[in-house]
Amino acid sequence: MFQSLPAFLLRSARSSLSYIRFAPHSSSHLAPVMTSNPKLEAFRQLLVDNNLNAYALPSTDAHQSEYLPDHEFRVRFISGFSGSNGFAVITADKALLWTDGRYFAQAEKEFEPGWTLMKEAVPEAISPEDWLGKNLNSGDTVGVDTRLFSYFRGKKFSSTLKSYGLNVTTQERHGRVINLVDDIWTTKPVPEIKTVTTLSLEECGKSTADKLADLRKTLVSKKCGSILLMGLDEIAWLLNIRGFDIPYNPLVYAVLLVTLENEYLFIDQAKLDEEARKHLNLQNIMPYDVAADFLRSYNQNHVKNSPKVFIPDSTNYVLGDLISDEFVFKGASPVLIAKSIKNEVELAGIRDASIRDSAAIIRFLVWLRKELANGTHVTELDAAAKMDAIRAEFDKFVSPSFTTIAAADEHSAFPHYHPTEAEGHQQVRPDSVFLLDSGGHYRDGTTDVTRTVCFAAQPDPYFKKLFTFVTRAHIDNAATIFPDGVNGGRLDVTARQFLWSQGYDFSHGVGHGVGHFLNVHEGPIGIGYRTYSPEAGLHPGQVITIEPGYYEVGKFGIRFENCYEIVKVESTASGATNFLAFESLTWVPIQTDLLELQYLEQKHIDWINQYHATCIAKVQPFLVEHDLTEELAYLDELTVKLTL
Amino acid sequence: MFQSLPAFLLRSARSSLSYIRFAPHSSSHLAPVMTSNPKLEAFRQLLVDNNLNAYALPSTDAHQSEYLPDHEFRVRFISGFSGSNGFAVITADKALLWTDGRYFAQAEKEFEPGWTLMKEAVPEAISPEDWLGKNLNSGDTVGVDTRLFSYFRGKKFSSTLKSYGLNVTTQERHGRVINLVDDIWTTKPVPEIKTVTTLSLEECGKSTADKLADLRKTLVSKKCGSILLMGLDEIAWLLNIRGFDIPYNPLVYAVLLVTLENEYLFIDQAKLDEEARKHLNLQNIMPYDVAADFLRSYNQNHVKNSPKVFIPDSTNYVLGDLISDEFVFKGASPVLIAKSIKNEVELAGIRDASIRDSAAIIRFLVWLRKELANGTHVTELDAAAKMDAIRAEFDKFVSPSFTTIAAADEHSAFPHYHPTEAEGHQQVRPDSVFLLDSGGHYRDGTTDVTRTVCFAAQPDPYFKKLFTFVTRAHIDNAATIFPDGVNGGRLDVTARQFLWSQGYDFSHGVGHGVGHFLNVHEGPIGIGYRTYSPEAGLHPGQVITIEPGYYEVGKFGIRFENCYEIVKVESTASGATNFLAFESLTWVPIQTDLLELQYLEQKHIDWINQYHATCIAKVQPFLVEHDLTEELAYLDELTVKLTL
Repeated sequence: MFQSLPAFLLRSARSSLSYIRFAPHSSSHLAPVMTSNPKLEAFRQLLVDNNLNAYALPSTDAHQSEYLPDHEFRVRFISGFSGSNGFAVITADKALLWTDGRYFAQAEKEFEPGWTLMKEAVPEAISPEDWLGKNLNSGDTVGVDTRLFSYFRGKKFSSTLKSYGLNVTTQERHGRVINLVDDIWTTKPVPEIKTVTTLSLEECGKSTADKLADLRKTLVSKKCGSILLMGLDEIAWLLNIRGFDIPYNPLVYAVLLVTLENEYLFIDQAKLDEEARKHLNLQNIMPYDVAADFLRSYNQNHVKNSPKVFIPDSTNYVLGDLISDEFVFKGASPVLIAKSIKNEVELAGIRDASIRDSAAIIRFLVWLRKELANGTHVTELDAAAKMDAIRAEFDKFVSPSFTTIAAADEHSAFPHYHPTEAEGHQQVRPDSVFLLDSGGHYRDGTTDVTRTVCFAAQPDPYFKKLFTFVTRAHIDNAATIFPDGVNGGRLDVTARQFLWSQGYDFSHGVGHGVGHFLNVHEGPIGIGYRTYSPEAGLHPGQVITIEPGYYEVGKFGIRFENCYEIVKVESTASGATNFLAFESLTWVPIQTDLLELQYLEQKHIDWINQYHATCIAKVQPFLVEHDLTEELAYLDELTVKLTL
Repeated sequence: MFQSLPAFLLRSARSSLSYIRFAPHSSSHLAPVMTSNPKLEAFRQLLVDNNLNAYALPSTDAHQSEYLPDHEFRVRFISGFSGSNGFAVITADKALLWTDGRYFAQAEKEFEPGWTLMKEAVPEAISPEDWLGKNLNSGDTVGVDTRLFSYFRGKKFSSTLKSYGLNVTTQERHGRVINLVDDIWTTKPVPEIKTVTTLSLEECGKSTADKLADLRKTLVSKKCGSILLMGLDEIAWLLNIRGFDIPYNPLVYAVLLVTLENEYLFIDQAKLDEEARKHLNLQNIMPYDVAADFLRSYNQNHVKNSPKVFIPDSTNYVLGDLISDEFVFKGASPVLIAKSIKNEVELAGIRDASIRDSAAIIRFLVWLRKELANGTHVTELDAAAKMDAIRAEFDKFVSPSFTTIAAADEHSAFPHYHPTEAEGHQQVRPDSVFLLDSGGHYRDGTTDVTRTVCFAAQPDPYFKKLFTFVTRAHIDNAATIFPDGVNGGRLDVTARQFLWSQGYDFSHGVGHGVGHFLNVHEGPIGIGYRTYSPEAGLHPGQVITIEPGYYEVGKFGIRFENCYEIVKVESTASGATNFLAFESLTWVPIQTDLLELQYLEQKHIDWINQYHATCIAKVQPFLVEHDLTEELAYLDELTVKLTL
């Protein structure tokens, strides 16, 4: 699944150097809005009660998570907007929601009365900070829940508002930061307690002890005495555990302080069964809620010249700010960086999971084509459910790695569309353009694949042209050879230059890192036009998607996505040994009867033929073993050698 | 002339978001150095006298200038190192000089006794801040001349050292910041007073009044009441003046405070003759040295809620720090951004100057080939002098825009080599690989062109292969079509991808902005792998170089550089109207007999043929008019149509 610029920037732990612009939707929307929205009315009373002129609310949790469980989805509760990137500002007469281009249409549709869209990353964009600075009066006060800001962004947000002469306050109760939305959210769901699962050494390839030893080496080299970890995937990876607190991300809410001698894990202990406790083998396991109190006293025990506390950007502003400035060492998390390079056990698992996953997708495509040919009425929701069901048949499957995107025709033109009750009953017709973007968590790996298909007898030539362009964009990027350590941001253009030469472009990144039975969007690496951190160099052993697309509103969308492993190039013409290449993990054949070969060069044809030959080598034995005869026939049919 | 990553990062006003790494040359160099260097001994006595444990000295002036006049070249005086990127640190037992890969060999050669090279941008790099933090003791004190730090870098440098428990002090005398090096620099040259020249409206295309009006609109939109300008090229552009204080950059030392109502210019008044005063027509012209005192009192007149003072990064730390934090608005200078888009008069001038400049280079190449064929002993210094002399023959010539690089054979493998008395007597032999990188300031424009030639009867096939690769890299980049506003950093890879595919690369950027009778390296735009500021989008009317290269130490270097104007694409296949292209300004033919055509595709051949056809169209009339018959013959000979 693609990951577009602003979402990652706003929310991610890894984007402190990035640049975002925001814009009002249109000036007419800025006129005072008369509304009868009881939620907003109740919330505005809270503003009055708390002497606030505005409240600022990012749509995330205390760990900068990209996906949120229901009880953390405050922006959705207060505004109706359910997109993964949102930043709300409520004043006495305005309720504004910032989001990016993926969500403009969705936001307008989902808004409850009284909300106004603020567009990010358009030329006339204005940031929430600047909007507040320009629309409040000097001396006014803005309330924030500082848990929902990363340490870096929180500091910056706060100092920008202060530079406008505004006050920034956090609301507290019984000494703990609260969120004002919770005060009116009487129907807030209570989260279920789900036990974590543990990974054996055979599954994860490196023990927590060894990972901690590496981490401590890094801390010592940076003259640090400890590190405060809040990135939930970092904690899961380091402790070789997986949790089920967040939809689609196998994570458990926790805070982990690692010192040179000890580990202090803050977690809801009900989520640890006997096996997990034994696996963790930690002396200091404390309730999640006492992390702040513990850190406060931890900080008080620091004296002048104590070793520093490493504060990565995944740390939230509340906890980070408990450490005195003089003891703070800011930097990109060494756990984040170490995690991105998969070990041999992880890689073997991912390769294996990807073969099963490719077989599942082939099985789905066979099913879809047959149903459509038979005249069955298939909706997008049917298709998504079928894909999820097929994946679940396969070995080591845990859950989908994100909401399956099954989009027909004009729906496919919205990169982030996924079928809902409101829209998902749209039929996938026999001549539809159909885009499937889906993935799975398996105990041995996480996958993410997109194919766009069309089984019409005579597909639209314009669609076929753009299908060919996107295929070419994918190949141009996937065939790039590059020096070890290149920042993925530099490779973005190899996916676009042919599209640009024809006057086309697409508005999301080219690819993102993928975890090992972890987040489908994994930092710090990626390929795109946003600014990646300097630590986001590409290295052998990393796993990344390549997924260029093209979207024409009202017509169709096309995306072609594989996962790739980054590998060393065995030999180069120059003899240099530091060059890398992408090696596919995904083995789902391309629907070549949609290609207009005149738009391809011989090198693209060669790439497709080679890819298809490897599809057969990788997936055929699996299909044979599982006696999937229709799928075998489909594989044979689609991998017929192309000639220019 | 190429501009490599670290120089610009360290020195430039426009690099606050960038990331640099540094490394010790080798650990063995870190052992205490016993030396009998009287300068270092005298300086170390000053450290003792001032209670300092170290002194940190960037190689720049109070305006973050890239080129320095003799009296500002403190790093060269104290260390011997004359490269344009240097950062010195002196302690009781160490004298360290940080620089980038262009200068490693040069630094080792130029160092006076007792100096150690610290390599930037290598894997084991360590920054001066981190080196100081790790090698001094907590509580130690580092002296700095804060004039030599930009506001942003100065703040960061200072806070990083403080985070290591170090103190940072500025040395002052009579209330003004001094530089300790000046105390031992008894032979420091006294700068000559040179009168500024003024540009008429016919030469510059836009009056200062109109430029100031635009600037004030921007200030108002940002709620600022003034801007402090210290970028010398920004001041020159805004006031439509040019000066002669700095070699190769037509600039005058000045500080300009622009408020919504007034302008306050701080400049050595002896540099203004009657004509200049009349042209400037400013009420408030004050001595350069009183800027600090004026700003101090200007700041004192600010009260709570006064409009802010815009502080661009070209502001130095001393002056910027005189403005209280609450009044500071930090940002990319609006003058820098406005200046990068040339108006029609500037563009017409640059186009015209480039034709004269191209004719000058053709004239030089004709001369060189003839001299070599005749068996004349030509040295690099001879060649550079000849190039400079030919350029000076042409209309509106003012000066070279940088030191002419005339490099033969192994010298050409050093991107930043230029012939000096020590090395420049090397002969350019009849079969030499010869690289010429030169440019001129004309009253109507600035140029920058590189050609690599070889007049051997049988040039080395390996050299020809790489010459072809570099030519292809240049064409691949120059032929890129891209959407308006794309950050130049995104286009870097189109120059490299073919080189990478063969296992080759080069270690400098692809291109830099060029001024209009102003700096040959002009921000904020560029094409390269460093992080450009978010304001560095490419737009029609900008002028930029494209100059990929390849360098093989001990053998040869190749670089192919033209200047390009950015233009709108008239029509695209998609019908989109927001796409841009590069249109050459430089019209010097390519030595096609060095091309190995099997490494090119038809599109490269077409590009070369089209380029050569335009060379004839642009330069032939000029050569005819000036009766340059040998040059006409050369032009005809080199532009013969290629076929694959």
